[in-house]
Amino acid sequence: MKTDNSPARGMRDLLPADTATRDHVLSAITGVYSQYGYQRIETPALENIDRLQSGQGADNEKLIYQVLKRGLAAEVEAGTPLRDLVDLGLRYDLTVPLTRFYGANQARLPAPFRSLQVGPVWRAERPQKGRYRQFYQCDIDIIGETTVLAEAELIEATTEALAAVGLADVTVRLSDRRFLTAVAEAARIPAPGQAAFFITLDKLDKIGWDGVRAELAGGAIAPEAAMAATDLIAAVRDIPAGKIADGVADAVPGLPDDVAADLAATAACLERLAATRHLAWEFDPTLVRGMGYYTGQVFELVTPGFGGSVAGGGRYDKLIGRWLGRDVAACGFSIGFERITDLIAARPPRDAVAVLAEPDVAPADALAVARGLRAEGQVTEVIRRSGKLAAQLTRLEGAGFTAYLHLRADDATTAQPRALRPLGRS
Amino acid sequence: MKTDNSPARGMRDLLPADTATRDHVLSAITGVYSQYGYQRIETPALENIDRLQSGQGADNEKLIYQVLKRGLAAEVEAGTPLRDLVDLGLRYDLTVPLTRFYGANQARLPAPFRSLQVGPVWRAERPQKGRYRQFYQCDIDIIGETTVLAEAELIEATTEALAAVGLADVTVRLSDRRFLTAVAEAARIPAPGQAAFFITLDKLDKIGWDGVRAELAGGAIAPEAAMAATDLIAAVRDIPAGKIADGVADAVPGLPDDVAADLAATAACLERLAATRHLAWEFDPTLVRGMGYYTGQVFELVTPGFGGSVAGGGRYDKLIGRWLGRDVAACGFSIGFERITDLIAARPPRDAVAVLAEPDVAPADALAVARGLRAEGQVTEVIRRSGKLAAQLTRLEGAGFTAYLHLRADDATTAQPRALRPLGRS
Repeated sequence: MKTDNSPARGMRDLLPADTATRDHVLSAITGVYSQYGYQRIETPALENIDRLQSGQGADNEKLIYQVLKRGLAAEVEAGTPLRDLVDLGLRYDLTVPLTRFYGANQARLPAPFRSLQVGPVWRAERPQKGRYRQFYQCDIDIIGETTVLAEAELIEATTEALAAVGLADVTVRLSDRRFLTAVAEAARIPAPGQAAFFITLDKLDKIGWDGVRAELAGGAIAPEAAMAATDLIAAVRDIPAGKIADGVADAVPGLPDDVAADLAATAACLERLAATRHLAWEFDPTLVRGMGYYTGQVFELVTPGFGGSVAGGGRYDKLIGRWLGRDVAACGFSIGFERITDLIAARPPRDAVAVLAEPDVAPADALAVARGLRAEGQVTEVIRRSGKLAAQLTRLEGAGFTAYLHLRADDATTAQPRALRPLGRS
Repeated sequence: MKTDNSPARGMRDLLPADTATRDHVLSAITGVYSQYGYQRIETPALENIDRLQSGQGADNEKLIYQVLKRGLAAEVEAGTPLRDLVDLGLRYDLTVPLTRFYGANQARLPAPFRSLQVGPVWRAERPQKGRYRQFYQCDIDIIGETTVLAEAELIEATTEALAAVGLADVTVRLSDRRFLTAVAEAARIPAPGQAAFFITLDKLDKIGWDGVRAELAGGAIAPEAAMAATDLIAAVRDIPAGKIADGVADAVPGLPDDVAADLAATAACLERLAATRHLAWEFDPTLVRGMGYYTGQVFELVTPGFGGSVAGGGRYDKLIGRWLGRDVAACGFSIGFERITDLIAARPPRDAVAVLAEPDVAPADALAVARGLRAEGQVTEVIRRSGKLAAQLTRLEGAGFTAYLHLRADDATTAQPRALRPLGRS
């Protein structure tokens, strides 16, 4: 009986052509990151559910795949809260596990610690085209560096990593959560309403300034405050990159000195980098980045003709402290790995040789011929001759073979089997 | 407040030194497998629970991490079977997902299909030293090859892969489930008791022949049958490798001709291979391999001084058919990846350079110096000077740095910063 062999809902299988592209992209990206000293770590896919549901994951916490405790009775007692049946969950990002990892292993890690993580995360989102419930993230983080050296290096390394896979035409968008807070304060948006203000501002790309003002006016924020805040932000948008620090300080009364100084320092790093290679960047005060845990500069990379960002990150100096009991400076950048692989069409050609063995060729003979080809450096597969030769050769070509050797029983035992023949390239 | 930052029970974090070893081993193994034409595929970690609990996983099915359905009410109604709350589970091996994958994607796969899978699996086993509840498996499988070409190639490729990571001294143990069935038939062990016979025989390494006979006698198998079966097996153990086929045919009345012919063919492949490189192998009729789904030859690799096998596999021609509705020949070999990495002590040295920047060095200057070193091919990290220099240098050495460049504000802006200085190797 034939059964439905589809993957679980919202998930997908990766075929050889898919993994070839992904391995190629991953190898190029991690090669660059390694040169910067980022070292790969790995945490388990499962984390304790209390940690996953501690509030740092925003809406992602609603999308957790929750794991049943082991050894429960086969029938649930009346009135049991669902929560009591669960002790673990699948991670929805790589940052929550990293903060736990650092807390557990800090004594054995260098300072600063440059972490590279690549791996799947899981979110039970509504299935839609091009979005899957299991997907890879690729994160780098610097833990223990308090200055914008961290921010600037993360941006330099990630733009270089993307260039290594052919995405050289990216623009860095830079902002600072502290700047946004100062704007909100200057506009007299009270602290409880500031989160809503950020969330609305984050939609600017989609709904425009009028939409933002309308949404702010429809909320709990006073119309004058909303207008003052959006005016402030619109004003600094026009400041040239080279004059950012003074510009934002002049525009936003009460902006802390170190926020302007940090923006100036990051700007200096990016300008210096731009002198050595193609790099476009802009200060964008409308950039928010969704997660609530950011405490300083936030940034993302955008590429032409591709909606949304291909990488995003920022500083989160308070997150590790929640678990460790003392704050540790941290800053991270996450590449949207699935989006990148969608953008990369190229994959390395297979270039394999087929030893096409007639049915009467002894396995030992076929394997010996293949062994000889591999010793010459050829990727070689032994394949049984079947059906019409021309049709089989067409299939081989489609599967990435570039040459074949037709092995018959009578020449298998001779020292020199029939010569390698080329297959045309489609 | 400090929280417990340990990984979930029975799981572990992998530190940079761990992943360096693992990446090194994996790269060597997959490099060899690629030369044989195995292509990497990937399936989701989650599978539908019905498939995972369909009986092909033996005891592993009791160890599944089960995932709660999404959107359930917060409180469970009285008398709800636990089973009704679950729809997914984490895979406990890579073979069950592979059979589903093949069923779903066969039209887009070459014939035969050589699959390579590397990835984590999860089993909620009792935690014990050196065993973890998330661990990696590394499997190759040939789907669509009916002859022992598959078995012999899997063994050749896997012994070569292990040699590539320094495990050249392995012995192949070979048996055949059909041979064991013929022995049981010849000894008049009825079909229902044969599974128990195999399970007991599998313990020979641990409990010896006396133990096996005692356990068989204590079970449902008649003492004469048990004695006859063990005598038959003991007899063929002494047959020299070169005379296996005739030997087993003579020793076991009723052994199907193709079983002896297949053993002879695999033996011929292994003998031929042994003429080109170091390879030890033996026919071992006491080899069972735990999984119930094997239908033909089974094999494993053992290495001196290491209890248990480092790789195991066999033919399973009936497994895909359970889902696809028609049988497809299949044969696989799984490397115990965690065991292998435990055996491999060596890992590549890090050989990184530290740009040791005094606190007053501007980030842009530090990054520019590091950029110059990377352009020369050096793995380079920017690290802030802090504390006593001698102590910091010792820490750098411990973290795998082999040289450093001490950057002060006054020479950061000159064209030529201070020279690279070596760090001693510990």
